[in-house]
Amino acid sequence: MRAVEPPGSRIELRVRYAETDQMGRAHHMEYLAWFELGRTELLRSAGVAYAEIEKRGVMLPVAAVEVGYFKGASYDELVGIQTWVSEVRSRTVTFSYVATRAADAQVLATGTTRLVCTDSRGKPIRIPEDVVEVLRALAAAAPTDAPDA
Amino acid sequence: MRAVEPPGSRIELRVRYAETDQMGRAHHMEYLAWFELGRTELLRSAGVAYAEIEKRGVMLPVAAVEVGYFKGASYDELVGIQTWVSEVRSRTVTFSYVATRAADAQVLATGTTRLVCTDSRGKPIRIPEDVVEVLRALAAAAPTDAPDA
Amino acid sequence: MRAVEPPGSRIELRVRYAETDQMGRAHHMEYLAWFELGRTELLRSAGVAYAEIEKRGVMLPVAAVEVGYFKGASYDELVGIQTWVSEVRSRTVTFSYVATRAADAQVLATGTTRLVCTDSRGKPIRIPEDVVEVLRALAAAAPTDAPDA
Amino acid sequence: MRAVEPPGSRIELRVRYAETDQMGRAHHMEYLAWFELGRTELLRSAGVAYAEIEKRGVMLPVAAVEVGYFKGASYDELVGIQTWVSEVRSRTVTFSYVATRAADAQVLATGTTRLVCTDSRGKPIRIPEDVVEVLRALAAAAPTDAPDA
Repeated sequence: MRAVEPPGSRIELRVRYAETDQMGRAHHMEYLAWFELGRTELLRSAGVAYAEIEKRGVMLPVAAVEVGYFKGASYDELVGIQTWVSEVRSRTVTFSYVATRAADAQVLATGTTRLVCTDSRGKPIRIPEDVVEVLRALAAAAPTDAPDA
Repeated sequence: MRAVEPPGSRIELRVRYAETDQMGRAHHMEYLAWFELGRTELLRSAGVAYAEIEKRGVMLPVAAVEVGYFKGASYDELVGIQTWVSEVRSRTVTFSYVATRAADAQVLATGTTRLVCTDSRGKPIRIPEDVVEVLRALAAAAPTDAPDA
Repeated sequence: MRAVEPPGSRIELRVRYAETDQMGRAHHMEYLAWFELGRTELLRSAGVAYAEIEKRGVMLPVAAVEVGYFKGASYDELVGIQTWVSEVRSRTVTFSYVATRAADAQVLATGTTRLVCTDSRGKPIRIPEDVVEVLRALAAAAPTDAPDA
Repeated sequence: MRAVEPPGSRIELRVRYAETDQMGRAHHMEYLAWFELGRTELLRSAGVAYAEIEKRGVMLPVAAVEVGYFKGASYDELVGIQTWVSEVRSRTVTFSYVATRAADAQVLATGTTRLVCTDSRGKPIRIPEDVVEVLRALAAAAPTDAPDA
């Protein structure tokens, strides 16, 4: 399987020694941290700093994750994380990801995370208008034939 | 939503300070480490030490995860992880989990992880006969009406 | 080297798979999370809930750590963490730790962490009187010949 | 305190959301993972791939760490890690680090880690000649007035 390159943000990171486990590959939980980096950068590329959203008292906790793992990532390997917005609703937004080995574009994992918008006490609220507009623009730019996680 | 208590293993752990994030709750990736603890203990309760399986050159890397998050877990809270086997095939096994807040049995998250059996080089193989028998016994003991993740 | 058992709190934990690295041992950074668990329990045993201290707007960030590592900890091994208070000053408190393999009491690591008391904006303040009294009582109970980290 | 810039490798990384804790800063244990990234890059800049050393059956586990923390690092902040070799012996090597906030070069933390060379079973051995030569050249390039951790 070759990596798709849908519109969106692509970051690269190196697998940290601390991220490996005794199987000699990055532990499967680390991909969730990598995906989080991916959506931070996707939002930044669209002019939205997630840190600023939180300062307004608006939180986006993760409500659901799905990840499929195809190949392992080794210590010190360069990994690409492609991130795009796959669905926007009034109170939730879903990001999709493909993690690839940079050296040969092999797909390591695909995933989605659904975030729900809440106030600072955890009560679900509508995504602020200026943020939802950016998310909808990002979703419109994403491919309709993106691979499901 | 009240926690179900299907047959299987239940462990308790305290949320570590290092596991919290700036939202003041355990980061969503930590649940994958907790689920891993849960399946280690479920296997131990059935007489199987996962560490011993690996010493035979048999690996069980995670091929897919799904988690739904309902409530956050705070620093120092006791969290229960209920684990059971929900599906066994010749080369894969799926574990299911419910994480609850021990104080009031509220469901924090539910999840599943599908593991694939491989040799030490990552090639998929059949689960060894003695292990698959234990997994099938565990699956038979699990409820048919367990909640989906 | 045999484990010392100074007065203080002792907890046990199992090494998580996610905590191992490709050397097949718990990654050295994990000991800092274990030590944090140790001091949470030491404080609890003395009637102080660290979570409650923070709710009063009093923080205890870590200002310095020292760890010496002697043996590795394997996946699923039981590890004991012995924790005691080794120094109390008006604005700082130092905790000391010995991590041992529970099976044979071999010392895995020793360490110290110095915490500084701050308000919620990070400004150093005196440790609240009721807390400092508990810390001084814990320090008085600790051995004078405890091993240095 | 202003950051020193001794010869050596400097990397930059962004604080991950998953690395923050409920104090709203990167958890103190994360610096050990960052330092590890720093020494991987320092070695790479000198033509040594740590991953290759391990493939020869030579391990460099951490025997001791010391870190002093001066300021917190916030989510999404750029952090610089300056790394150099501060001491080389036949069986051990010590790396030193300064972590700075990239925006204003304020020192966040300083630290050292002493690594001991072992074979694949954990027995201390001499650092291989080709590696020790590189480490000595790096140490010679480091400043004699570098700040102690």
